Amino acid sequence: MTIEDLRARIDAIDDQLVSLLNARAACAIEIGRLKRRDALPIFQGDREQAVIRHSRAVTARLGGPLGEEAIARLFERIIDEARRLEAAFEESAEREGGASW
Amino acid sequence: MTIEDLRARIDAIDDQLVSLLNARAACAIEIGRLKRRDALPIFQGDREQAVIRHSRAVTARLGGPLGEEAIARLFERIIDEARRLEAAFEESAEREGGASW
Repeated sequence: MTIEDLRARIDAIDDQLVSLLNARAACAIEIGRLKRRDALPIFQGDREQAVIRHSRAVTARLGGPLGEEAIARLFERIIDEARRLEAAFEESAEREGGASW
Repeated sequence: MTIEDLRARIDAIDDQLVSLLNARAACAIEIGRLKRRDALPIFQGDREQAVIRHSRAVTARLGGPLGEEAIARLFERIIDEARRLEAAFEESAEREGGASW
C-alpha cells in the first residue's frame, strides 16, 4: 500500500472512531440523566478505573501496536470529555428545571 | 435502559474503539516506515491539520453530542500517541539497522 492508501484507510477508521465516540458520549449523557433522576453520585471513580482496566486488557489481548499505557492515556481523555459533556448537560438541565431532555 | 445496560453498551463500544485505534496505529507505523524508506519528512503538520479538520467535519455532520472542540482535543491525543509510537519504532529501526520490521 502507498502512503495515500494508508491515509485513506486512516480517514475511514476516523469516520468510525468519531461515530463510536459520539455513540459512547450519548450513553454517558443518558447515564448522567439516570443518576440525577435517582440521586446517585455523578462521579464514580471505581467505574472509571474499570473502564481503563478494560481498555488495557483489550489492547493487551490484541497485542497492540498500542501499548497499555498509550491506551490508558487515550481512555483517560475519552472519559474526561464524557465527564465534561455530562457536566454541561447537567448545568443545562438545572438551568431549565430538568425539563429539556 | 438501565445504567448497567448502558455501561455494557459502553464496554462493547470500547472494545471496538481499542481495535480501531490499534488498526489506525498500525497504519501510522507503516506510513512512518514508507517515509523513512523514501527519505520523506516524518512530521507533516498539514496532514495532522487535515486529520483534525476531517474529525471536526464528521462530528458536525453527525450532530454530536460531542462538539467539534471535544473531537479536536481527542484527535490531538490520538495523533500524539501515533507520533510517539512512530518515534519508538524509528528508534528501534535505527538501533537495529532497519532490519527488524
